Amino acid sequence: MNVGLIGFGTIGAGVVEIFNTNHDLIREKTGKDLKLKRVVDLDIETDRGVDIDPEILSTDADDILNDPEIDIVIELIGGYEPARSFILRALENGKHVVTANKALLARHWDEIMATARENGVRIAFEASVGGGIPVLRALNESLAANRIKSIYGIINGTANYILTRMASEGMEFDDVLREAQRLGYAERDPTFDIEGHDTAQKLIILALLGFGVYVPEEDLHVEGISKIRRDDIEYANNELGCSVKLLATASLDDGELEMGVMPFLVPHEHLLSSVNGVFNGIYITGDFTGPVMFYGKGAGRRATASAVVADCMDIALNPESPLQPGPGVRMVESIREFRETRSRYYIRLDAVDRPGVLHEIAGAFSRHEISIESVTQKGALEGESVPIYIVTHEAAEGDIQSAIREISEIRWVTGEPVRLKIL
Amino acid sequence: MNVGLIGFGTIGAGVVEIFNTNHDLIREKTGKDLKLKRVVDLDIETDRGVDIDPEILSTDADDILNDPEIDIVIELIGGYEPARSFILRALENGKHVVTANKALLARHWDEIMATARENGVRIAFEASVGGGIPVLRALNESLAANRIKSIYGIINGTANYILTRMASEGMEFDDVLREAQRLGYAERDPTFDIEGHDTAQKLIILALLGFGVYVPEEDLHVEGISKIRRDDIEYANNELGCSVKLLATASLDDGELEMGVMPFLVPHEHLLSSVNGVFNGIYITGDFTGPVMFYGKGAGRRATASAVVADCMDIALNPESPLQPGPGVRMVESIREFRETRSRYYIRLDAVDRPGVLHEIAGAFSRHEISIESVTQKGALEGESVPIYIVTHEAAEGDIQSAIREISEIRWVTGEPVRLKIL
Repeated sequence: MNVGLIGFGTIGAGVVEIFNTNHDLIREKTGKDLKLKRVVDLDIETDRGVDIDPEILSTDADDILNDPEIDIVIELIGGYEPARSFILRALENGKHVVTANKALLARHWDEIMATARENGVRIAFEASVGGGIPVLRALNESLAANRIKSIYGIINGTANYILTRMASEGMEFDDVLREAQRLGYAERDPTFDIEGHDTAQKLIILALLGFGVYVPEEDLHVEGISKIRRDDIEYANNELGCSVKLLATASLDDGELEMGVMPFLVPHEHLLSSVNGVFNGIYITGDFTGPVMFYGKGAGRRATASAVVADCMDIALNPESPLQPGPGVRMVESIREFRETRSRYYIRLDAVDRPGVLHEIAGAFSRHEISIESVTQKGALEGESVPIYIVTHEAAEGDIQSAIREISEIRWVTGEPVRLKIL
Repeated sequence: MNVGLIGFGTIGAGVVEIFNTNHDLIREKTGKDLKLKRVVDLDIETDRGVDIDPEILSTDADDILNDPEIDIVIELIGGYEPARSFILRALENGKHVVTANKALLARHWDEIMATARENGVRIAFEASVGGGIPVLRALNESLAANRIKSIYGIINGTANYILTRMASEGMEFDDVLREAQRLGYAERDPTFDIEGHDTAQKLIILALLGFGVYVPEEDLHVEGISKIRRDDIEYANNELGCSVKLLATASLDDGELEMGVMPFLVPHEHLLSSVNGVFNGIYITGDFTGPVMFYGKGAGRRATASAVVADCMDIALNPESPLQPGPGVRMVESIREFRETRSRYYIRLDAVDRPGVLHEIAGAFSRHEISIESVTQKGALEGESVPIYIVTHEAAEGDIQSAIREISEIRWVTGEPVRLKIL
């Protein structure tokens, strides 16, 4: 079987390296000689640090898409175009496709899956979520006999690295972000990672496989971690026994799906709270299997390439498999409005320490029928601004938002209050 | 496709329940109507608490093995015979087999795999290790492009429950064991679980899939947890920042395999130390994917049945798959003698507190060239027996054993010293 690779970047080079290093393993395991016949990139000059026959390099994707001898096309250029056109043409030409392109799948899922089905070929995309962690195969195959009840995922290594360092080193967000950029764990423009958009795209794919429902990013509540301060993390850790984690969540409650991306307080007893640094963890509960978690490197050249090559091997073994991504049936009756979701909440606000302030704040909660579990105000000189930490009993997101809006209008409350759900 | 189930015990009843509850899901996912055509058990009278058509019950395994309409045989009776004969006959009659029988696979692997190959049918056994955790499929398929470097597993829920309760409640081994027996987490005769034999059988299967090498239990070092005391766990936790866990380990060092079952001190930073209670966790490192961990319920009716049915679905989807369990090539040049394995060690011994004792103990270590990292002796009245806690630098198991033998012969050392490796 011949493989064509479009996109000779970081992960593409990792794929070439696996084919070089573990070629015997791949052959023994699949019983087929998977051969990298052609590698296409706009830049075929730069040395990627891997051995490659210069004869197989090309700058023209048609050399792969129109080559009848190529059976599997690996797409690793990312983004919407020309990746979408390349993938559709490969499928139409009867080639199986392996991709790590979460953005494309999260937007054009139906079109791509329908094209694969119509042409009787397979599309595999394990590397699109969780890098080297085999979570999609688990969700799609190993847990296939289960109705999925919930998926909670730490699926962005950059955000998790930042939150972990803030906790372990007592650093503020901006300082850790600069460190992460220096170490290559964060992009120069980190918005996509730290504001939750990367997490949201992966969540869309997880929900498709777990619940058979497609929710576009526009319909999702997506919130990042840039407002979180060191003292939030310290209070959560020391007083509430929780870690702060950016979570992708999708859970089914009586046929209604709750789904979104936001930072949560995760109790230390929960295994997700021990997923630290650049690592990812995806915690899935099925009706029969109960909770299972998958952990590993969610990004990086070697881990992601490992998932890409495993997909190629699976296609080589089972090219005729009528594998249907997702449960095949839609498990969801409706999608819950974000405002209707309920949780316990942690709220931190800064207020000038003077008589009556706490009374006014408590009034706002009371008007929205939110009951308070605990309030902590650190001492300060009267007239100075101090943080107040509040934990509520279970309340609706909409009521919390309304209360917070009222509170932020109180004259003595400075800055914008922060509210996090508690898992 | 028709399925026959031999063994209508706890897990068998779980399988029937999944077929009842999630029948539509299984049909949509596989595109096939997987039907439970026959259920065989010696006892077909007892109510298992699940709906079943009495017409399909039988006490004669031949009603499954000789029925040409049955495509998949699920074997859930456990043990060596008649399970082995039933499985071999099913395979010879051209039927695929799904089993959870770790004992049988760990002893008769070659015979069973060869019979499946010769008859062109599949054998699947996800449920044999880690219950509902899809670790075998991950090892065999998702990580297939990797050379596995190491496998560390907490794969016995009973032992892990006992160690977890000893730590969280400050209880002694015997008390927790009695509690576990009362709650149904431990058998009346708990030897198989607490002395590591169950863990060893599962490890043998993991090593076959990860390293392509078969090591019979007789050749393995297998050690359980019954000698561990509350104060070992407390000292490990408070002074060394470690949890005590019964680990199955298999790791490759320069072509040489180290493999065994024994309790370890696992540092709190390692995710395995957070796998608590009856849960299992398997931590696998591949050369490309880096470390990945799989977590979930390692036993129990519903979780294990979920893995059994997922195997049936996989066979229904890919009956022709030439799937080769294991890497296809033997990754191991030789197996390291247990005495040659090296580690840091925790050693606890009880000695009468009198002048010269510590000097004699230190002498034994010194004679075997073991260097000591720390020694803690709790104060006591002179002449009373007190525990002494020792941490060594890296040393060979054989030297540690020799030193401990000498130490236990010192007149003032009471009872048998305990030594645990540190991960």
